[in-house]
Amino acid sequence: MTARELTGHSLIAGRTVAGTGSTFNAIDPATGDVLAPDYSQIDVDQLREATAAADEAFASFSSLSPDTHAAFLDAVADEIEQIRDAIIERAAQETGLPVARLTGEVGRTTGQLRMFAGVVRSGLFRGVRVDPALPDRTPAPRVDIRQRKLPLGPVAVFGASNFPLAFSTAGGDTASALAAGCPVIFKAHSSHPGTSELVAGAISRAVASNDLHPGVFSAIFGPGRTVGQALVTDPVIQAVGFTGSRSGGLSLVQAAQSRPVPIPVYAEMSSVNPVFIFPGALEDGLEDLAAAYVASAVGSSGQLCTQPGSVFVPAGEKGDAFVAAVSAAIEKSVGQTMLSPSIAGAWREGAATRDDHADVSARGTEGEGPNAPAPVIHSTSIEKFVSNEVLQGEIFGAASLIVRYADVSELPAAAERLEGQLTATLQLADSDAPQAAALIPVLERKAGRILANGWPTGVEVGHAMVHGGPFPATSDSRTTSVGSLAIERFLRPVAYQNLPDALLPAPLQNSNPWGVPRLVDGSLEG
Amino acid sequence: MTARELTGHSLIAGRTVAGTGSTFNAIDPATGDVLAPDYSQIDVDQLREATAAADEAFASFSSLSPDTHAAFLDAVADEIEQIRDAIIERAAQETGLPVARLTGEVGRTTGQLRMFAGVVRSGLFRGVRVDPALPDRTPAPRVDIRQRKLPLGPVAVFGASNFPLAFSTAGGDTASALAAGCPVIFKAHSSHPGTSELVAGAISRAVASNDLHPGVFSAIFGPGRTVGQALVTDPVIQAVGFTGSRSGGLSLVQAAQSRPVPIPVYAEMSSVNPVFIFPGALEDGLEDLAAAYVASAVGSSGQLCTQPGSVFVPAGEKGDAFVAAVSAAIEKSVGQTMLSPSIAGAWREGAATRDDHADVSARGTEGEGPNAPAPVIHSTSIEKFVSNEVLQGEIFGAASLIVRYADVSELPAAAERLEGQLTATLQLADSDAPQAAALIPVLERKAGRILANGWPTGVEVGHAMVHGGPFPATSDSRTTSVGSLAIERFLRPVAYQNLPDALLPAPLQNSNPWGVPRLVDGSLEG
Repeated sequence: MTARELTGHSLIAGRTVAGTGSTFNAIDPATGDVLAPDYSQIDVDQLREATAAADEAFASFSSLSPDTHAAFLDAVADEIEQIRDAIIERAAQETGLPVARLTGEVGRTTGQLRMFAGVVRSGLFRGVRVDPALPDRTPAPRVDIRQRKLPLGPVAVFGASNFPLAFSTAGGDTASALAAGCPVIFKAHSSHPGTSELVAGAISRAVASNDLHPGVFSAIFGPGRTVGQALVTDPVIQAVGFTGSRSGGLSLVQAAQSRPVPIPVYAEMSSVNPVFIFPGALEDGLEDLAAAYVASAVGSSGQLCTQPGSVFVPAGEKGDAFVAAVSAAIEKSVGQTMLSPSIAGAWREGAATRDDHADVSARGTEGEGPNAPAPVIHSTSIEKFVSNEVLQGEIFGAASLIVRYADVSELPAAAERLEGQLTATLQLADSDAPQAAALIPVLERKAGRILANGWPTGVEVGHAMVHGGPFPATSDSRTTSVGSLAIERFLRPVAYQNLPDALLPAPLQNSNPWGVPRLVDGSLEG
Repeated sequence: MTARELTGHSLIAGRTVAGTGSTFNAIDPATGDVLAPDYSQIDVDQLREATAAADEAFASFSSLSPDTHAAFLDAVADEIEQIRDAIIERAAQETGLPVARLTGEVGRTTGQLRMFAGVVRSGLFRGVRVDPALPDRTPAPRVDIRQRKLPLGPVAVFGASNFPLAFSTAGGDTASALAAGCPVIFKAHSSHPGTSELVAGAISRAVASNDLHPGVFSAIFGPGRTVGQALVTDPVIQAVGFTGSRSGGLSLVQAAQSRPVPIPVYAEMSSVNPVFIFPGALEDGLEDLAAAYVASAVGSSGQLCTQPGSVFVPAGEKGDAFVAAVSAAIEKSVGQTMLSPSIAGAWREGAATRDDHADVSARGTEGEGPNAPAPVIHSTSIEKFVSNEVLQGEIFGAASLIVRYADVSELPAAAERLEGQLTATLQLADSDAPQAAALIPVLERKAGRILANGWPTGVEVGHAMVHGGPFPATSDSRTTSVGSLAIERFLRPVAYQNLPDALLPAPLQNSNPWGVPRLVDGSLEG
């Protein structure tokens, strides 16, 4: 086998394991063709090999030196780049996504891994705190107490359908869990098994070449209802990462909470990403704004977590002109192939339901192949929007709802009615600032990210990014699944009181051999 | 009314509110006497006044300047000190705890509030991160992205029975939630309503004198099954803090998870706080070690979350001598009054059950009054301990179990069998270091705090403390309920992308008017 060949099997702790269960195949959504090879599915006993190996790997992997740990993450990025073309070719076949988009996604994935290598080297995530002994304190002396954050333990990651790379095998959940020091068992999404296998091979080679315990990483193919549930309820697993549908996320949350020892689930689920266009934003460049909206709404066939699904537009001439410009662009648009027949089917159903509740502003034309439905824009009034929950729901794909309002003073109350969101966006001119200032406190309680004069798609990977938000955008609003803060999902604090220096873990020893930043008596050292 | 008089009513957003429900009274556990006044219980409609006021208070309270915010926390501490004697007198009557212990607990409570005032002034908890725009980056420019942590919203706090001050009205949960910027609705424990009312009055006066919205704080008396459940499921409430029994904590978790929008519950529940005595620790000062163990096990009548409930002692002569010294001290011990008749009853039941599963090493004598049972020490073998779940459970009060082991190599496997714990303690000499080093990785996965050559009772309030641990010690191992890190339980990150400086919240503005520490491009500034 070369790194570019596919076996059709799971990769468990460095070994190729043929599943005992039934097989499945990837489908090319552009043609409906069945893609080789057949993929074998493991059973629950085979899963236990992966969890046992992850358990075994934890002790050594969770205490790697920063250099070794960071070199491993860099090596994963290098290994992915070695087979970049093969990954992109297979991913394009399996998902229908354009090569340009997938090329960007590979870069994002490797960039994310290297960012986390930097996080590991800097050591801030270790959360080191030192309260030195105060032997002369009255009425009682204080003993030496030190704190650090430790990885939770082995983590289960479920791949997303819509990002075969950046939210999949070596995506944000895997990268942040590995950076925290948690072994990962990755359950591949059934719609892009070949892509998953290629990337899993890259990770596995980096594990081997860095002399890590092979249990640090496994990638498995198996049925969600048996193997997926067994993974989440396995006592070895200490946290779960997931990006996908609300029903899928909630079922994992339920399984995790019903364990004898419950564990956290980080599920990124649904969001309509409201955009509020203030009147001033339409004074100039209305055509450009309309074009940017359409690009954000239909790019990647609208299959992005942050796709703008609800756009609030003022009444009046300028608002009408904006809607006309959007409609003209949509009418010229052609459907792009969606990720899978089932996703295209769900989109058609959602869009048809919306037809019964809102007006169709514009519809494009169907694209080639069976799974490229015509993009559509509906419109409704703000009164109907706030009183009709059907209109507030997400349609995953190239559909968006224009909500017309009479006066900006109506926006805060409408925003109050929204569910939790990943993003909320303001389009505004300087003259709109006072009204925007009144809306922002509402949006802060509703969303994980607030944007001005941009579009929510295209999530930057950095230190300040939040890709999260209140329920149901995610199952845990205290976290993000993109950006360096994502590592905190997989850590917990432990205090060490009066331990001899030699028994302290390296980052807490007096000599600070790893040179980690420390909070001493509540103040940052240095 | 003066600040020292009791009304017998709830305090809702600054107003004394007579509950429409039945009344109850505190009981002096030393005598069984009913204490005046009668306490009226509110109904769910009256609860809605508190949650509505908290909701209303959130906008202003969550955006206070650090100076105003910190001054308020300091003022709460000052107001408590103003009525310190009245608080201690009433608390002693209601709980049977000695005045010396309660005096210490007042100091701990006010010290904790002042520590959080310092945390608010330092601003590190705001988690400010700035990734500046990179207009020239290729292939695509980066826009300016900033992040800060925001308070979750109004928080419900349930008072503990065993710390009428430090884990009650103005205790760690309330102090950290108020420091985060969350209004608090405090549900008083029914065993010390007078103490709760006095402290609630102190908080309320600090709210008023600092010109804050009165909804920032309410303290209510009401039945757990109706008002308590309604509080946790009220849509306004965004998080819950609780210290108490496992069943009580789990019922709150269940209620919080079944909401349409689930919320986090931080429940600190049960722990047996294992202590591992290595052979070297018995070479010198065996008598002192025995005395320290007994003091930690029976102090405050054993009613401490971190009471050492299981102590592993080596076989052989030295171990026998240690057990003999412990037994001699226990036989001389006299029962102290427990917090309430029901707690004393539960203790008697637990201790009687243990009599059927382990040997009684020593028993003290009953104290005065109806609720002062005799302290007891049982002993068993490590084989019986690991195979008998009854022996691994907590008995809340002055009972402890000595577990005899033949060889230190048995300890890691025994520790693996333990449930999650608040603490784990090593008693060791230099010669024990290699064996202790083998045990520590197991303990790190089991406990929130690891101690050497000390006893787990007496939880220091500082920046490095962790009072938390894996389930069932707490419902969320990622947090602590004591120490400055406790504030993070009530915060969530929000990102701001490309916002005009004037629309950014103060801590994110270019001029950094609050002077908060910032992570710029992943590195600490300055």
